[in-house]
Amino acid sequence: MISKRMSEKLNAGSMIRKMFEEGNRLKKIFGEENIFDFSIGNPDLEPPAEVTLELMNLINHPTPGMHGYMSNNGYLSTRNAVADKLTRSGNTTFSPDAICMTVGAAGAMNATLRAILDPDDEVILLAPFFMEYRQYIDNHFGKAVIVATDEGSFLPNIDRIAAAITPRTKAIIINSPNNPSGTMYPVSTLESINNLVNSYEQVIHIISDEPYRELVYDGQSVPPTQDYIDNLIICYSWSKSLSLPGERIGYTAVGPRHPDLDVLSPAIAMANRILGSVNAPALFQKVIEKAMDVKVDVALYENRRNLLYDIVTSAGFSCRKPQGAFYLFVKSPEPDDMAFSQVCAQHNLLVVPGSAFAMPGYFRLAFCVAESTIKGSSIAFTAVSKHYGLNAQ
Amino acid sequence: MISKRMSEKLNAGSMIRKMFEEGNRLKKIFGEENIFDFSIGNPDLEPPAEVTLELMNLINHPTPGMHGYMSNNGYLSTRNAVADKLTRSGNTTFSPDAICMTVGAAGAMNATLRAILDPDDEVILLAPFFMEYRQYIDNHFGKAVIVATDEGSFLPNIDRIAAAITPRTKAIIINSPNNPSGTMYPVSTLESINNLVNSYEQVIHIISDEPYRELVYDGQSVPPTQDYIDNLIICYSWSKSLSLPGERIGYTAVGPRHPDLDVLSPAIAMANRILGSVNAPALFQKVIEKAMDVKVDVALYENRRNLLYDIVTSAGFSCRKPQGAFYLFVKSPEPDDMAFSQVCAQHNLLVVPGSAFAMPGYFRLAFCVAESTIKGSSIAFTAVSKHYGLNAQ
Repeated sequence: MISKRMSEKLNAGSMIRKMFEEGNRLKKIFGEENIFDFSIGNPDLEPPAEVTLELMNLINHPTPGMHGYMSNNGYLSTRNAVADKLTRSGNTTFSPDAICMTVGAAGAMNATLRAILDPDDEVILLAPFFMEYRQYIDNHFGKAVIVATDEGSFLPNIDRIAAAITPRTKAIIINSPNNPSGTMYPVSTLESINNLVNSYEQVIHIISDEPYRELVYDGQSVPPTQDYIDNLIICYSWSKSLSLPGERIGYTAVGPRHPDLDVLSPAIAMANRILGSVNAPALFQKVIEKAMDVKVDVALYENRRNLLYDIVTSAGFSCRKPQGAFYLFVKSPEPDDMAFSQVCAQHNLLVVPGSAFAMPGYFRLAFCVAESTIKGSSIAFTAVSKHYGLNAQ
Repeated sequence: MISKRMSEKLNAGSMIRKMFEEGNRLKKIFGEENIFDFSIGNPDLEPPAEVTLELMNLINHPTPGMHGYMSNNGYLSTRNAVADKLTRSGNTTFSPDAICMTVGAAGAMNATLRAILDPDDEVILLAPFFMEYRQYIDNHFGKAVIVATDEGSFLPNIDRIAAAITPRTKAIIINSPNNPSGTMYPVSTLESINNLVNSYEQVIHIISDEPYRELVYDGQSVPPTQDYIDNLIICYSWSKSLSLPGERIGYTAVGPRHPDLDVLSPAIAMANRILGSVNAPALFQKVIEKAMDVKVDVALYENRRNLLYDIVTSAGFSCRKPQGAFYLFVKSPEPDDMAFSQVCAQHNLLVVPGSAFAMPGYFRLAFCVAESTIKGSSIAFTAVSKHYGLNAQ
């Protein structure tokens, strides 16, 4: 007697989680070192030393009520630090009232969607996208409208988005650097999205999922969305930048030019409360407050990206070099990416089919894994390449 | 452009939070020591020393991945410890598979309701009840059906519950010791509820919200629901027993005799994931794993209960002595409890009107506040008593 809607979900499951479980099964049989698991974006780097030092500092100098309730949007001191950091990261000034501390980016997106959606309101998703977005929209009885990005670049296609907008369109979810494609939107893309949205009388929120904001390579940096998008709601998480995914700490930030700023902030804080978070975990609010300018060693991820990119392309697979995030999004040598993933599993190689991101014909590799896994996987990629008769270099 | 349904909520607000804000306003004007704030159940005791020691221990001996993702239902070692604790607390054996670690009891209840409710499914609430239950049900488009408890005792009335059950009834929420009444259900009540529910062919879940399970007075202990209720889903939080409300750590436990045990556990874990929690905070899972048999000094709360009970009844108010939890639920001397609360505020006394718990004509006092606040409030209660011409002792 679980609900019908949950029963359907449970049967469908999450392909990423399924690969994760399959990986555990294979690891038990063949030994962990013989399985090349690229299925899940669980950062393998430990949090920076500053995080541990700050944790020690807080626990060695406890203050009364430090584990107690605070306002539903979080500590003012933490929100001040976030607002200040956002202000410094571009040319847009944020107030702490625009910030709500949340249980990671997933908590942030759910609070946002809970605040803005009535049943059957539409939310535009740009394929390929992180599949959990569909679940978040469905939680609040919204309707996901999937729009394809440009072939090859995976950049948002403005004409296609325009064609998908209806009077029920409440939001567009953007994600740069993108999971799974690694694509980073240039300024011109952000400007085009903003111009498009501003050409409508209805308010269309741009929900910008930015957990990979700091994880960009080749000396680049991500254009600050707040400088280019007016109807902006940023959803952020320290899961990736500080390797704290299990601690569930993130925020929402409403852009200062958003026409609904005054009502959106309290609505998101209330949604944060009633959805069950109540508030973001207290101790880690204080930790990140002091670690606002710290991040993991991005050069290590860049090195892993390069290593895996070379192995995969040398084996004859076709792939754009990702500009950011944790993932290679590779063309599947056969159109059926589910069948391809099974062939990979037979070679102890765990990948996620592109269908899991509404993009069949591709597969995703997460390179936030040990270098030894990446180096060891060369044999497996070569074997799969041979299986498909690809031209290895 | 927030949603209509959120807009309505935002206008209604939470009466408890409103009193909290009013309290902050008054404290700024009159000074904190001159405001007697009994409005919010934020435990004023610090967590037991064992919690701090365990935190130090974990941080001084870090293990790889300790801040990373784990399964959506939490660490197996933590779930083992919870299952073991539940097993020891009654005559019912729990498996770790029946446990899902959650972001507090609010997260637990949302995950549970997300797992079981289809739109317009009915959930029975026993007035007086913690008003957030209505929000949680509404999140998932369920329908709250309010049933009055017995006058005076505030115990569930089985005939009234039976009269409220329809083919759409999916669950009954119970809460003992009760917020706001402090009433503890005896074994006979649990048995009657179980017999009633078992007399229907449809599965009716009993969601037991148990954050006050350990907070009982006069040498009593709460009967373990798992020994008496078959269709049981326990929602627990360490917010009260370890004074950790800001850290958001709790669990769901499906009773081993629940007919849907096998499907409910994965459904709740999935709901926990997609609602945005993903998993309960990692560090505090490990903390509570080691502090399973620790709790705050309940004698301190008992003393506060006694102090406040004596002050309130001596001032001429009428009130049952609560058997557990943090609250006195007192008869309002005028039927309009909202007007009464405003009279109290004029005497710098902050109470929550019973209407906030679907029980007009009463008011709630949270006694998890400093002893000095309780002792100082005597003057204010006497003044309000005089205002209404009550018979003070």
